[in-house]
Amino acid sequence: MTQHFSPLTPPQRVLMGPGPSDVAASVSSALAKPTIGHLDPAFLEIMDQIRGMLREVFQTSNELTFPMSGTGSAGMETCFVNLLEPGDAVLVGVNGVFGTRMAEVARRCGAEVTEVPGQWGRSMEMDALRAAAAGKKFKVLALVHAETSTGVLQDLSGARGLADELGALLLVDCVTSLAGHPLKIDEWGIDAVYSGTQKCLSCPPGLSPISLGTRAQEVMSARTRPVQSWYLDLSLISGYWGDERAYHHTAPINMLYGLHEALRLVLEEGLEARFARHHRHARALVAGLEAMGLEPRVPSEERLAPLTAVAVPEGIDDGAARAHLLNEFDLEIGGGLGPMKGNTWRIGLMGAGSTRRNVMLCLSALRSALRAQGGRVSGDPLAAAEEAYSRA
Amino acid sequence: MTQHFSPLTPPQRVLMGPGPSDVAASVSSALAKPTIGHLDPAFLEIMDQIRGMLREVFQTSNELTFPMSGTGSAGMETCFVNLLEPGDAVLVGVNGVFGTRMAEVARRCGAEVTEVPGQWGRSMEMDALRAAAAGKKFKVLALVHAETSTGVLQDLSGARGLADELGALLLVDCVTSLAGHPLKIDEWGIDAVYSGTQKCLSCPPGLSPISLGTRAQEVMSARTRPVQSWYLDLSLISGYWGDERAYHHTAPINMLYGLHEALRLVLEEGLEARFARHHRHARALVAGLEAMGLEPRVPSEERLAPLTAVAVPEGIDDGAARAHLLNEFDLEIGGGLGPMKGNTWRIGLMGAGSTRRNVMLCLSALRSALRAQGGRVSGDPLAAAEEAYSRA
Repeated sequence: MTQHFSPLTPPQRVLMGPGPSDVAASVSSALAKPTIGHLDPAFLEIMDQIRGMLREVFQTSNELTFPMSGTGSAGMETCFVNLLEPGDAVLVGVNGVFGTRMAEVARRCGAEVTEVPGQWGRSMEMDALRAAAAGKKFKVLALVHAETSTGVLQDLSGARGLADELGALLLVDCVTSLAGHPLKIDEWGIDAVYSGTQKCLSCPPGLSPISLGTRAQEVMSARTRPVQSWYLDLSLISGYWGDERAYHHTAPINMLYGLHEALRLVLEEGLEARFARHHRHARALVAGLEAMGLEPRVPSEERLAPLTAVAVPEGIDDGAARAHLLNEFDLEIGGGLGPMKGNTWRIGLMGAGSTRRNVMLCLSALRSALRAQGGRVSGDPLAAAEEAYSRA
Repeated sequence: MTQHFSPLTPPQRVLMGPGPSDVAASVSSALAKPTIGHLDPAFLEIMDQIRGMLREVFQTSNELTFPMSGTGSAGMETCFVNLLEPGDAVLVGVNGVFGTRMAEVARRCGAEVTEVPGQWGRSMEMDALRAAAAGKKFKVLALVHAETSTGVLQDLSGARGLADELGALLLVDCVTSLAGHPLKIDEWGIDAVYSGTQKCLSCPPGLSPISLGTRAQEVMSARTRPVQSWYLDLSLISGYWGDERAYHHTAPINMLYGLHEALRLVLEEGLEARFARHHRHARALVAGLEAMGLEPRVPSEERLAPLTAVAVPEGIDDGAARAHLLNEFDLEIGGGLGPMKGNTWRIGLMGAGSTRRNVMLCLSALRSALRAQGGRVSGDPLAAAEEAYSRA
């Protein structure tokens, strides 16, 4: 019996969760442009432009820089399956969901994984990682630059030095930092990095930009066995994105149109201006949240600008509050994951969504949600946010 | 130095290659609809509708039926990594690029792969597969229903019986047949199947619909080690697409809007009507091609309707002819792969692109391309095609 559905009419949400984030109108329009073939000369030129722009946004000259045809987790897996062989030793900092996931993915490559437990909501200490390494050598040191599950920014200033001590490649998750927080792949000596399109690039989810440097390429060239994933095998995929243009898989054409436009907007704004904008709105948001009595989960010096985690106040029901935001304001914020489930809200101000309008909307709507549950809100969050803007 | 590019203006091609195919206007528009969160209740309802429609198009009641977040090759890899463990025996029919790829993907799972070589441009014989099996048992029998590299339709009528003899699961590639050629997952006893969105579904590339039955699920439940790919692990992904709604990865929201609309159009047309349409236009195309002296690569009873392969005539330069089509007519057809490179054209009439208008355009343009190289075209391809239509 055939089912007949109507054409979709998705609601118009304001996306202030951990991603996907609000998509710029011109990015949405780009998705709908005419599909062309993945070997069309016109498409090959688009691919070159995407690679060029991605290198700028990653601040790298890495040849191996392009978007993988999957979401951020596919980018994570790409880095691990290409760099690791069974028995390789990996050191992973685990202070949230994505460090946990890195360790799991590495284990599935047959690696010997040493997990270094950190505190959820805090940055990893290089000394803790060093101590856990206990003088051993490692193939890969894996860290999360921006922990999307907790809103923690990892200080990477000591990471290259530590990787050198370990004899390791430095692999970094920057899903939530790329284009929203300073990130300098070459200057910081990062060997392999992956991101996603649905955070500070403000493109819908579906692609994972990656970049790997010469040390990583040497490791891949020296492999003794094929990469366990054919779909994510960079030695094959680079034949398509490189000069050879050899067919590997059919590239997701229209998603790449969207990424092209998203990258164009990032470079038009300028990286420094974009980082400053993310920083400015995050500060105003936090000021407003604190005025309402909501406590940030992360100390100020370790806080991500694109994503702010706050504790759900005592006596407030997480699910009911988020349903209030969604139903009354068409506003999405994120709940917590793992040990933060039910007790934490994650509020994103990413890319096109990092605006004064969204800061004010979110503060107003949260106040309404707290009041709807009989919560007492004594301070004036909007005044506090305005005050923060005026100080900027 | 920042690069500044203009917004994209991709050319308006007519896509008559092996895919991507022409995208219906309402599918393009669906891609641009407002992005919402992957856990938004409104999105969960969209997911349920997609699953329901996919089951109808696959003609299955399989619970495990949903689109993977990657292209067709990711769907292929999903089936193999979830069903196989190291040392498992796999029998693969290899009569084109995609059989070759299946064997390679299975090897990367650590399987013992027996490749049964077939002829490119011909269907596999069940007796040849049986002989190669030599009385041994296998975990998986893998066949390509629609060989996109050659335009061959595999007769699957003896496949279930053979799989039973081998004690094997029946795994089938239907990337180019789904929604373009009869395909009955349950009735034919297929245990695992994958497809792509960019062929007869007429959606842009980027998703891979899959379906796995109860025998396949039993094999997965009995695994002794985790699936080597975290990204493609169905035990995790089914927690998101199923009732649990557990976050695994961020679903490619807007691509799923496109698939929703594409499936809606398929069911609105009706499967039987759609298959008949593909058949009718393919027959007219072939009549026209033969009238021009172009020889089909595949005997008529083994020919795919959605994709027709013909030999490039003696003395005609493949690349120059396809460039003529692209530059003079904005028309893409496909070249050959592997042993067919340079000597074969692949002409797709898929989904929204399977139309009388496209048949006539392609015949006219090909005649022009042959004449541009001094080729003699004696017959009248358009009259021959019209004649075929009038016989229908």
